[in-house]
Amino acid sequence: MRTVVLRGPRDIVLEDRPMPKPADREVLVQVRAVGVCGSDTHYYEHGRIGNFVVESPLVLGHEASGVIVGVGHGVSEGRVGERVSIEPGVPDMTCPQCLSGRYNLCPSMRFFATPPIDGAFAEYVTVHESFAHVVPSNISDEGAALLEPLSVGVWSCRKGAVAPGSRVLITGAGAIGLISMQCALASGATEVVVSDINPVRLALAKELGATAVIDAGEGGLGELDMAPDVLIECSGHPPAIGEAISKLAPAGRAVLVGMGGDEIRLPLAVVQQREIVVTGTFRYANTWPTAISLVASGRISLDRLVTGRYRLDEAEAALVSSRDDKTAVKAVVYPQK
Amino acid sequence: MRTVVLRGPRDIVLEDRPMPKPADREVLVQVRAVGVCGSDTHYYEHGRIGNFVVESPLVLGHEASGVIVGVGHGVSEGRVGERVSIEPGVPDMTCPQCLSGRYNLCPSMRFFATPPIDGAFAEYVTVHESFAHVVPSNISDEGAALLEPLSVGVWSCRKGAVAPGSRVLITGAGAIGLISMQCALASGATEVVVSDINPVRLALAKELGATAVIDAGEGGLGELDMAPDVLIECSGHPPAIGEAISKLAPAGRAVLVGMGGDEIRLPLAVVQQREIVVTGTFRYANTWPTAISLVASGRISLDRLVTGRYRLDEAEAALVSSRDDKTAVKAVVYPQK
Amino acid sequence: MRTVVLRGPRDIVLEDRPMPKPADREVLVQVRAVGVCGSDTHYYEHGRIGNFVVESPLVLGHEASGVIVGVGHGVSEGRVGERVSIEPGVPDMTCPQCLSGRYNLCPSMRFFATPPIDGAFAEYVTVHESFAHVVPSNISDEGAALLEPLSVGVWSCRKGAVAPGSRVLITGAGAIGLISMQCALASGATEVVVSDINPVRLALAKELGATAVIDAGEGGLGELDMAPDVLIECSGHPPAIGEAISKLAPAGRAVLVGMGGDEIRLPLAVVQQREIVVTGTFRYANTWPTAISLVASGRISLDRLVTGRYRLDEAEAALVSSRDDKTAVKAVVYPQK
Amino acid sequence: MRTVVLRGPRDIVLEDRPMPKPADREVLVQVRAVGVCGSDTHYYEHGRIGNFVVESPLVLGHEASGVIVGVGHGVSEGRVGERVSIEPGVPDMTCPQCLSGRYNLCPSMRFFATPPIDGAFAEYVTVHESFAHVVPSNISDEGAALLEPLSVGVWSCRKGAVAPGSRVLITGAGAIGLISMQCALASGATEVVVSDINPVRLALAKELGATAVIDAGEGGLGELDMAPDVLIECSGHPPAIGEAISKLAPAGRAVLVGMGGDEIRLPLAVVQQREIVVTGTFRYANTWPTAISLVASGRISLDRLVTGRYRLDEAEAALVSSRDDKTAVKAVVYPQK
Repeated sequence: MRTVVLRGPRDIVLEDRPMPKPADREVLVQVRAVGVCGSDTHYYEHGRIGNFVVESPLVLGHEASGVIVGVGHGVSEGRVGERVSIEPGVPDMTCPQCLSGRYNLCPSMRFFATPPIDGAFAEYVTVHESFAHVVPSNISDEGAALLEPLSVGVWSCRKGAVAPGSRVLITGAGAIGLISMQCALASGATEVVVSDINPVRLALAKELGATAVIDAGEGGLGELDMAPDVLIECSGHPPAIGEAISKLAPAGRAVLVGMGGDEIRLPLAVVQQREIVVTGTFRYANTWPTAISLVASGRISLDRLVTGRYRLDEAEAALVSSRDDKTAVKAVVYPQK
Repeated sequence: MRTVVLRGPRDIVLEDRPMPKPADREVLVQVRAVGVCGSDTHYYEHGRIGNFVVESPLVLGHEASGVIVGVGHGVSEGRVGERVSIEPGVPDMTCPQCLSGRYNLCPSMRFFATPPIDGAFAEYVTVHESFAHVVPSNISDEGAALLEPLSVGVWSCRKGAVAPGSRVLITGAGAIGLISMQCALASGATEVVVSDINPVRLALAKELGATAVIDAGEGGLGELDMAPDVLIECSGHPPAIGEAISKLAPAGRAVLVGMGGDEIRLPLAVVQQREIVVTGTFRYANTWPTAISLVASGRISLDRLVTGRYRLDEAEAALVSSRDDKTAVKAVVYPQK
Repeated sequence: MRTVVLRGPRDIVLEDRPMPKPADREVLVQVRAVGVCGSDTHYYEHGRIGNFVVESPLVLGHEASGVIVGVGHGVSEGRVGERVSIEPGVPDMTCPQCLSGRYNLCPSMRFFATPPIDGAFAEYVTVHESFAHVVPSNISDEGAALLEPLSVGVWSCRKGAVAPGSRVLITGAGAIGLISMQCALASGATEVVVSDINPVRLALAKELGATAVIDAGEGGLGELDMAPDVLIECSGHPPAIGEAISKLAPAGRAVLVGMGGDEIRLPLAVVQQREIVVTGTFRYANTWPTAISLVASGRISLDRLVTGRYRLDEAEAALVSSRDDKTAVKAVVYPQK
Repeated sequence: MRTVVLRGPRDIVLEDRPMPKPADREVLVQVRAVGVCGSDTHYYEHGRIGNFVVESPLVLGHEASGVIVGVGHGVSEGRVGERVSIEPGVPDMTCPQCLSGRYNLCPSMRFFATPPIDGAFAEYVTVHESFAHVVPSNISDEGAALLEPLSVGVWSCRKGAVAPGSRVLITGAGAIGLISMQCALASGATEVVVSDINPVRLALAKELGATAVIDAGEGGLGELDMAPDVLIECSGHPPAIGEAISKLAPAGRAVLVGMGGDEIRLPLAVVQQREIVVTGTFRYANTWPTAISLVASGRISLDRLVTGRYRLDEAEAALVSSRDDKTAVKAVVYPQK
């Protein structure tokens, strides 16, 4: 089968590899669509993300959907033919974190496209059957792939306890910001303000339901005219995070989703005087059923985020598509093409 | 001013009373709209609800909106002219329940139209300024009055922890059931099934967004084809409550809103084996800001529930309107007419 | 190896069986101590508990400790020699309940001494390595076995949100009641009242720290002079449960631990007016680390509960020990003797 | 009556003032004991704390106990003679924060010894009756005064969700650290490690139940050999806070109690990868009943913390007592002496 392999920074090739065989409890998935994530691009550009270093050839891609075409031992044959969305991180399921329901914190997590685990820029992949989630026919292949970033948004809203009537500030209107915004609206938030420095993205935020947008390029969050209950930080821009936290209402929650270096400056006095709760997110847990329901019921539109479509042999173009194009939000690769 | 006074079971008269004077921290409200609640009708029919007995003439009505026309000591004059929705229960604000944020459980609560406290079937009422909630202009007088039953729905969804992707069963499609259904949808629930024995109400449930309805007259909940995460029981029909609880998924929550006698039969083994959480609601606390946001943002439609409109001198007709008319949902009285 | 097998009601025999072999990820445990639970006695007397019917010979016993003497594939050899407490229910770890941290609600749970899964009245058993919890040397073999009922107590206090300053009522002073009482005290509860009809058990409750005891034989809970925040119901006596719930303070929690038939009468009006939360418990999840810490740190004494010690060939006597002896609390069987 | 008045930095005088008169719902308290808090000393030294500036003469002291000797309108005469502990912050009880149970975040809070509200270094004070908490006879006058700092500890443990079996790290072994440590133990924590640079305080921590202590003067927290579930930061030493947070286990909670400037450096990557929750505390809410129960039941010893006793005319000595004396923990002033 064909795969796209990263051998080092900016060194990517199309490579034939043997078809994977599903192990016990695994399914074999013919991949239909794979979204490109900022982390894929970061690995492509730098060959690493923090401590995770690409030391041997790595297949990128972890936002994937497809069709089950084979099953391993212990899996019902009846699953063959199912259209599925792949949850790309499979924990060990036996450690204390897993048994507590926090499997995203499992120290033995095997996550697609995170060295040394290969990802989904390939015609076929295998995954544990519990992590291949069947999707209804009214979710497209792209939508099924983008349930992965949607899971990030679902998780951020859960961490932030977004609820009916919540006032939410989203900083950063990339794919995760735009999706978190839609999740906040689907959770009943009635004010959802989005900030970014890219006017194209702000316009898209408006189109997708933001109650207000702020161009943070001039004056930061100065024009914000409410005190949010929840901040969902998706910019990953450390200098701005402290300012955003300082905008929160008493008892507000700050959910730090965007990755942006090792440290930020936390406004201690504000956090204390308003008893603000600050937390970070690491992937997600138990989000697929919710994400599927939200898309299947029409609450959230993922297809609108797709701004570029690529064949497998165009993966490199997909990976760099957002570099120069200010209108790009989400590129999708179709491995069968 | 004119008021409508209940002197005993089915004994109601129009009566002139002196205008009330706002005490310290109170506002004087010219009442514009008052919804009729099942409890009003129950007092009218029986002169009591459980331990609450109408021993002296009582003004009914506790779902009210209006305009502030005067203020007591300690209230800003600037509040005169505000359109407000009245939260009809004023707690003492100093007891342990109040200080803990559970003011609905305050033992010294003074609640409109609950003996011996008069209600809002009157041209003017007074209320503590913190319980006269300003509403924006895109909420109608009727909508502002019906923020009270909406608060019941907001509270039931909070107690049931309805969240994005929740599957919810609502038993009983009266005003509270229909409103709770809308709240569940606004909270992100993606399956909301409503049961009742009245086909007109089921049709209205469908119109307002129920994903399915069940005619419970034949076979109870037999045709329910999912295991709900949350039950919001609004029928107050004890024999059916145990069956509804038994439908819940593991870790499900049952919120008992409908009042229906002193006791029900609880399916102990089911509650244990699935670790179901059962709770009851008593009014609400801190719900108005949420309710206002939900209506003002268009998430919830209250006006559609109004099926009868009455002048103050027609209050008796309003009180009995639902007795014979299967299509009646919510009667509203206009004290200025 | 020797085992004790139940073939039907009151039909129990000592039987030689082949040594079990640890499967992948399992350990082989030489059993040192096994507590006798009321459910063991119930199976012995009746051959069934509700839907669980002993249809083929069954080894009883699920409160067990021992020493690891062998390991299956995938388990470190270094575990041989560890003294362990066995968590007797092994879930599938891959279903939605497990992945959510509620593995006690796993529909595929395999639980010791629950038909058709054999228990621990045997010289050796196997169990998944994640469910064989190493214990420090200051916990005795009996104590390590009784971490199982302690887990029930830990779970009931978690469900009841027992916290510093809580006032707790425990109904039923059997082993679970006495253990839940100790857990409540270890959680910071400052009033813990225990009721029972057995004065010997009440005396033991006092000795172990109850702040007051009530003889429920005469007048039920009439002499209770406080409104508890939490009820931990361990009697399994349905007629008394409604009364106990009615004693709770506003916003109180009732945790129904004792199994006692299919139904109870729930005081609906009380549950509503005080917004009481009622829930049941089904086993436990993620409790062993807490239970181990509590015993190792001396917060809870389990050894004091052991009132009878038996060899494996005396298992039948152990099973019936509490039938006639009012002073019996917990019998322990020593399979190596 | 005699009072001690701060007129500016290090300018303190004994002054006769008229007896205060209890307003509506207030009680008049003859003050028996007042603890000296670090904030009192800070006002004395600098005339300000952050934005709070002593602009007119201020009576310090907010940890107070006494006896009710008079009542205002609306208070039962029966309260005269009660021994009470004073909760020194009285909120407006009508704002959204108060109605939500978060009265510590009330923007209209009137707090003893916070400009311009006078404190309790006086023979008599008045306070709202709901904030004069009756104490049983087995709590001493000093203990009743120190329920105020105990409330800080109760609150920090609640915010940190300290529970049975928790592993807790307390940084800073001043009065608040030592009290939080005792609260953690009373909440069931089984490992409570305390760090400080003062060996006398570490010895006291050991004496009061710390399971281990760390001299942070050499090597910071380097010798910490466990990953805490909860950090209760009581040092207020910004450079060390980031390190302490980095020690937390996955899903750990950091509660920032110690005040130490406007900003700290937050280890973002750690907070994200372990999904750590960071929050600050501002005073407390609804803690007195718990604090009273913990002391009355003997769970927590406050008297042991008193290291200096002073007459009212020695208040200045009390305020500076901890400046040079490394063995000083808590000074108490007796206004009747």
